[in-house]
Amino acid sequence: MKAGNRTPGARLRIVLEPDVAFGPGRADLLQGIKDTGSIAAAGRRMGMSYKRAWSLVDSLNGCFAEPLVQASKGGPRGGNTHLTALGEEVLSAYRRMEDLTGAAIAPEMKKLKGLLHQGAKRR
Amino acid sequence: MKAGNRTPGARLRIVLEPDVAFGPGRADLLQGIKDTGSIAAAGRRMGMSYKRAWSLVDSLNGCFAEPLVQASKGGPRGGNTHLTALGEEVLSAYRRMEDLTGAAIAPEMKKLKGLLHQGAKRR
Repeated sequence: MKAGNRTPGARLRIVLEPDVAFGPGRADLLQGIKDTGSIAAAGRRMGMSYKRAWSLVDSLNGCFAEPLVQASKGGPRGGNTHLTALGEEVLSAYRRMEDLTGAAIAPEMKKLKGLLHQGAKRR
Repeated sequence: MKAGNRTPGARLRIVLEPDVAFGPGRADLLQGIKDTGSIAAAGRRMGMSYKRAWSLVDSLNGCFAEPLVQASKGGPRGGNTHLTALGEEVLSAYRRMEDLTGAAIAPEMKKLKGLLHQGAKRR
């Protein structure tokens, strides 16, 4: 089971342009960088290698008008890596979109849950 | 690039219960079965093996109170496979949720697009 499939609710992926997508994983990575001040630590708490986390950050930085993440010069343990103002803005916009989505589909979601097999409902 | 990342817009995955998820791929598979009357043909048009398509259908059928897909007895080429009333209902509910999501997040989406790198915008 994918980690993202454990908690009931809506998962939103935004495709802004072909091959420029932003979803739960990238949002959690930005959140982790904001919380820990480190790309390595943010990746670790998602079970992601530093290489993978860094590559995602690099690709995100290249998609937007300015970088979303400003890395410290001290390397992966520098501890001074942070979201830029634009990074904060993109993360907040995504969280708002998640909330708007959850609210918009709540009644349909409730109906769908009522159609589940009893075994599935109990899990 | 994933096929699902080609067209700009929102992609919605609904987690109804832990490990019971419904997203763009399952919706397209049901749509394909509805359009073609065949699990094999529905899978083929998504580049999916018959085995994979059948396994997804089997898993979906087991999640809900009744099957979503009624397979013909004639095998993969029987051509009489169809969505049940519940299958139609689940597919319609998902399509409504996609529309509701798109409408709810449109203003935020437009703002985010405006923050992209010019190169990304032109792609």
